[in-house]
Amino acid sequence: MTLEEKLAQAETHVFKTVFPDSTNHHNTMFGGKILLMMTETAFMTATRFARKGFVIKSSEQVEFMRPIPASSLIELIGSVERVGTTSLRIRVDIFLEKMLEEGRDKVVTGSFTLVAINEHHKPVKII
Amino acid sequence: MTLEEKLAQAETHVFKTVFPDSTNHHNTMFGGKILLMMTETAFMTATRFARKGFVIKSSEQVEFMRPIPASSLIELIGSVERVGTTSLRIRVDIFLEKMLEEGRDKVVTGSFTLVAINEHHKPVKII
Amino acid sequence: MTLEEKLAQAETHVFKTVFPDSTNHHNTMFGGKILLMMTETAFMTATRFARKGFVIKSSEQVEFMRPIPASSLIELIGSVERVGTTSLRIRVDIFLEKMLEEGRDKVVTGSFTLVAINEHHKPVKII
Amino acid sequence: MTLEEKLAQAETHVFKTVFPDSTNHHNTMFGGKILLMMTETAFMTATRFARKGFVIKSSEQVEFMRPIPASSLIELIGSVERVGTTSLRIRVDIFLEKMLEEGRDKVVTGSFTLVAINEHHKPVKII
Amino acid sequence: MTLEEKLAQAETHVFKTVFPDSTNHHNTMFGGKILLMMTETAFMTATRFARKGFVIKSSEQVEFMRPIPASSLIELIGSVERVGTTSLRIRVDIFLEKMLEEGRDKVVTGSFTLVAINEHHKPVKII
Amino acid sequence: MTLEEKLAQAETHVFKTVFPDSTNHHNTMFGGKILLMMTETAFMTATRFARKGFVIKSSEQVEFMRPIPASSLIELIGSVERVGTTSLRIRVDIFLEKMLEEGRDKVVTGSFTLVAINEHHKPVKII
Repeated sequence: MTLEEKLAQAETHVFKTVFPDSTNHHNTMFGGKILLMMTETAFMTATRFARKGFVIKSSEQVEFMRPIPASSLIELIGSVERVGTTSLRIRVDIFLEKMLEEGRDKVVTGSFTLVAINEHHKPVKII
Repeated sequence: MTLEEKLAQAETHVFKTVFPDSTNHHNTMFGGKILLMMTETAFMTATRFARKGFVIKSSEQVEFMRPIPASSLIELIGSVERVGTTSLRIRVDIFLEKMLEEGRDKVVTGSFTLVAINEHHKPVKII
Repeated sequence: MTLEEKLAQAETHVFKTVFPDSTNHHNTMFGGKILLMMTETAFMTATRFARKGFVIKSSEQVEFMRPIPASSLIELIGSVERVGTTSLRIRVDIFLEKMLEEGRDKVVTGSFTLVAINEHHKPVKII
Repeated sequence: MTLEEKLAQAETHVFKTVFPDSTNHHNTMFGGKILLMMTETAFMTATRFARKGFVIKSSEQVEFMRPIPASSLIELIGSVERVGTTSLRIRVDIFLEKMLEEGRDKVVTGSFTLVAINEHHKPVKII
Repeated sequence: MTLEEKLAQAETHVFKTVFPDSTNHHNTMFGGKILLMMTETAFMTATRFARKGFVIKSSEQVEFMRPIPASSLIELIGSVERVGTTSLRIRVDIFLEKMLEEGRDKVVTGSFTLVAINEHHKPVKII
Repeated sequence: MTLEEKLAQAETHVFKTVFPDSTNHHNTMFGGKILLMMTETAFMTATRFARKGFVIKSSEQVEFMRPIPASSLIELIGSVERVGTTSLRIRVDIFLEKMLEEGRDKVVTGSFTLVAINEHHKPVKII
């Protein structure tokens, strides 16, 4: 498998309905729940790229461009942005779809750095 | 857009990490949580195909072929199986990936029937 | 204990308030949460009948006859429908009660098949 | 309906599996989750007795006689203990069943006082 | 460290936003969720005072003086009320702050008794 | 009230027990749950400083210096880092305490930018 095929295969998609249990008092999705889902998506993308154990080292800037209203659908897409020696930087974008209309917009974007570890929790090489 | 393009576009993917909070005392994913996620995936697939409001009418047989161990990754894939006058039948398959190995297996499959409704909760035509 | 007494004793009741955290955007209980609760009720009914470990093999058709509005009470009742060699079929019915009115209606019904397993996850005889 | 029939009918049963997501680091059910479930049971018992809106006024002493291990079943039983002018005192007992053994023990007991209110949140007569 | 310093240091603060996922149909915080948070606060206060393992023995009367509306902030404050031989009584008070106004009111108060245990689950001396 | 008093008063403390339901398969607190709690703390700190409605605009770099093991206690502390015209930058630090030992360490640190909005969701001045 070429690196390009590997990168394509590692891309990880997560669709989610914005139910009332993840909204705040503005009736939009709570930012903390958004970051929770982005982190899980980043973790899965890294794991599926390298098939190693991973822990999060940092989240880089995450930009919330537009609020996500209740009763919409979102898709999180995780992709490998940079391959380091023992770490991966993963970008996660979120697209918003209204339930009753075609079309979608990117509404959140951010990056996360994860470190590959072995069973003794020591960093190991990615490739 | 042809029906085939529409069907392809409606296909809905949801990756998920099997965290301790969704397992049972066998240390495998609790069947109820699996059905919860399948139902949400079926709902999103129907919504994205027809861009109507939907309510669930029935789940057809869902077969749990193999247990899903904690600390694995799963992918749910929802696809439109049958287009009725006011209802859609959606199939949801679940594929299991081990974190540290390539390869995947289908472990759960089932179908769900959803009815399109208008704002007065009356059935409406799908197309 | 006769089989009839055993069947009566295994019947399992679960009352639940439909709080906002289990509703969807139609302000009714999300179908996935309903299936989650039915599966747990089926599991407990099987366990209490046979006092064995159980895993779910399949859910048979589950029919959602009427939506369950937020701020109602529901009762799930699990009962043994069929005793197989190594499996049990459990029926779960859900009854809806309005908070401020007497009376109740059956709104959901479905069946679940569970297999009795030993500590090596191999099927064992029910009786 | 006599008062006795009414009291019998209001008795409210809730079976629950002690899944990993409600345990603490002693691998027993977290006391806070127990109180959460008792309060909901008390609320449903009061509502089903009087068919009024209810808010909690106080929990009386709740005694935790024995820890509830993970992977057991519990049954909460709510019953009307005292009928006041605008309030009800509800007792909630919890019985513990091991999954693989017959028999059960009472492990928690406590009482809760709830006040009946109208749509303006003012206390109203119970009967 | 004097006892007074120890008591001051053990005081445990927990701020919380009242999100839709913890409210009931009156659009106020569900009493069960309040007791859940109070129990966790009591547990942390006891642990931080004595640095022992603790299990809950009883909750004393908890008084709900005023409902807690959705979209407010609350602060739970846990403090050691009485030091017994093998147990601690912890008081937990809850203060309510409106999001858009200065000022706060005490709205809930109650006490919890916890017992210090060793690794064999036997009571041990607090000091 | 001087700005200094206002800043001191806005400091927001949240203690939390790391229960099994927030851990990952390394038996440490899942990074996504950490970010969820940090965002809520940042939101409460901003709200308590300015008594305005707030939405999140971005999270700046969040550094996870050490994993947070299950069965520990953490304290999140939110403080105002920078007062802009219509926005606040809030820093959130997390301190880790072992249950059975005195002492604590800072294990996570990061900043969040929130924008003050009025009832039409338009930015408004902080002071």
